[in-house]
Amino acid sequence: MTSDGLKNVVLTESEMSFLDGDKGELVYKGYDINELAYKVRFEEIFHLFWEDGFPTQKQFDETCGVLAKNRPVNDEVKEIAKKLADADMHPMAALRTLISSLAAYDPDSEVSPLDVEANYRKAERIAAKMVTLIAAFDRYRRGLDAVEPDPELSHAGNFLYMLNGERPSEEAEEIFDTCLVLHADHGFNASTFAARVTASTLSDVHSTITSAIGALKGLIHGGANSEVMKMLLEIDERGIDPVDYVKEKLAAGEVIMGFGHAVYNTIDPRSPYLREMCKKLGEEKDELKWYEYSTAIEDFMEEEKGIRCNVDFYSASVYYLLGIPIDLYTTIFAASRVVGWLGHVMEQYDENTLIRPRAKYVGPQNQKLVPMEERG
Amino acid sequence: MTSDGLKNVVLTESEMSFLDGDKGELVYKGYDINELAYKVRFEEIFHLFWEDGFPTQKQFDETCGVLAKNRPVNDEVKEIAKKLADADMHPMAALRTLISSLAAYDPDSEVSPLDVEANYRKAERIAAKMVTLIAAFDRYRRGLDAVEPDPELSHAGNFLYMLNGERPSEEAEEIFDTCLVLHADHGFNASTFAARVTASTLSDVHSTITSAIGALKGLIHGGANSEVMKMLLEIDERGIDPVDYVKEKLAAGEVIMGFGHAVYNTIDPRSPYLREMCKKLGEEKDELKWYEYSTAIEDFMEEEKGIRCNVDFYSASVYYLLGIPIDLYTTIFAASRVVGWLGHVMEQYDENTLIRPRAKYVGPQNQKLVPMEERG
Repeated sequence: MTSDGLKNVVLTESEMSFLDGDKGELVYKGYDINELAYKVRFEEIFHLFWEDGFPTQKQFDETCGVLAKNRPVNDEVKEIAKKLADADMHPMAALRTLISSLAAYDPDSEVSPLDVEANYRKAERIAAKMVTLIAAFDRYRRGLDAVEPDPELSHAGNFLYMLNGERPSEEAEEIFDTCLVLHADHGFNASTFAARVTASTLSDVHSTITSAIGALKGLIHGGANSEVMKMLLEIDERGIDPVDYVKEKLAAGEVIMGFGHAVYNTIDPRSPYLREMCKKLGEEKDELKWYEYSTAIEDFMEEEKGIRCNVDFYSASVYYLLGIPIDLYTTIFAASRVVGWLGHVMEQYDENTLIRPRAKYVGPQNQKLVPMEERG
Repeated sequence: MTSDGLKNVVLTESEMSFLDGDKGELVYKGYDINELAYKVRFEEIFHLFWEDGFPTQKQFDETCGVLAKNRPVNDEVKEIAKKLADADMHPMAALRTLISSLAAYDPDSEVSPLDVEANYRKAERIAAKMVTLIAAFDRYRRGLDAVEPDPELSHAGNFLYMLNGERPSEEAEEIFDTCLVLHADHGFNASTFAARVTASTLSDVHSTITSAIGALKGLIHGGANSEVMKMLLEIDERGIDPVDYVKEKLAAGEVIMGFGHAVYNTIDPRSPYLREMCKKLGEEKDELKWYEYSTAIEDFMEEEKGIRCNVDFYSASVYYLLGIPIDLYTTIFAASRVVGWLGHVMEQYDENTLIRPRAKYVGPQNQKLVPMEERG
């Protein structure tokens, strides 16, 4: 059989998350995300996906402690980050390189991937350091020094603090925390699948996350949220009606980023939360225009084209209103999804089968080698 | 349907290479590898897989010129290589990091992956620089300076020269060149598949090769050849009969590396060439013991267990006799396979469909969130 990108092929069983594309449901380990948004902190998701169920207060404190301990990054990796920032590397390419480089300084990096305890230690270090690396890279390219993580702040709070050099407002921290919760896992999305393919060769944990970052960087995967914001900024600069802008793009055969989804035929259950946060932040900052442009586009696309927006559409303006540079958006996606990736990777190691489909060869047949001097 | 690691799922069509697992055939773009071994140079394979057919003398000279021009690596990447060498990073992890870092200095790295010409330029740079990076990393960890590539030498010759600091013998160069030819592509092996999964999100060329290196690093993929040599060295040190050693391992439930294959039910068509080269080098260097240990193990495994050796088995002792450090073997695999990876990546971009299978969710259902203070 030839499959359409394996779209309807069930590869394996998983206990991580469940998507119902027809009902618009996303469920983390049995918890509908509507049960979780605004109600749990991102640190609780680590325990949910890596251990079993939600943490007790004691377990939660332990997770926070482990993350606080692991967030700092050594000088060598910071020097590499500075070099890549000086070269103005794409932030996702820099994150891919920096996460890969962490293996050099992780005492467990070459311990067998079948050593479950070592995998947890590596997972904790990678997930903790990711926000530090993103923030440091961004500050270096702005000619600033990196800000050391604050062990008193949450994971979400730390990112905003290390990026901006000042503690975020309680509301900004809560909104950003909710963004992290909403992006943490999503079934067998392409980057998760890339991580599992790499894990299936019994390669190491750092390789799996490096692969996943590389896949997430793709324009039709995680790269979409930055593109959405570029569109909103262009609309704003040109002073054009957002619906006219979209009509213009569609007439030119272009795709409107942030719409449609490989699995959801109906609403993306994460969108309403992001829309709400976009409105809230817009009101607070007296910058409701991004919300207004976005809802106009959303309504048009839904009514005229029958396509609903996805998680990337409103996350663009939420991140913008939080003061995050546009080209960092996909790295934030990674900083959240890494918890899901690592859960999937551990699941893959646990009952491993090499993932290796086949191709149907359709090239030339029975060629005979001709000596070089006779070719032409 | 649930598939066994997608083993019998045909994902897509490909014009790259064809494997007949029952007949033991490997065909590159219509050319049986038995037509090619010892008869073509590795540089010709670039043209075969990236353009169409084997090059004329003029085209061949062009490829050699492009590779010579692109082999040198800038100081920034060398400094990163030195850092990773100082930290004694695993060579495959270092190669993964260094190839990823090249994107910072590639003027085309963020040009759309749908720009075919830019993809060629990136592919040429990545493939050319890979041998330079492997050799430089190894020299740095030995406390030596890197050796600049010699534009007069072949790709194979350059690797041995940059590694050892002296021009290789004609025979060593020819044997190493043949090794590169034999490893250049192999259908949808797991690392190629990882590269295509990453490409399918329309991520960039550097991301695809970084993913592929991560997957190739796996113990049950490219990592096997180093393990084979460790086994041969252990046999030699212990002075044990190779067959007794294998029996001992099998009795302990261990796997003998370098045997069995996901696709070939019969002979791996690359093995006889590697066996022959192992013998030739062994005779020349008066070190036939590796060949003797290997053939004894091969005969036992085939006769008693009905399992044939694969490409990794004899490549181990060939690389050993060429004086290549054991933990570099998988990087050599990468330095050859990168030509196949890049051909597959360009094919994937050319008619792209997102590769995203599904998982069957088997975790808990209908969980209700309990406040933290009530958990336990």
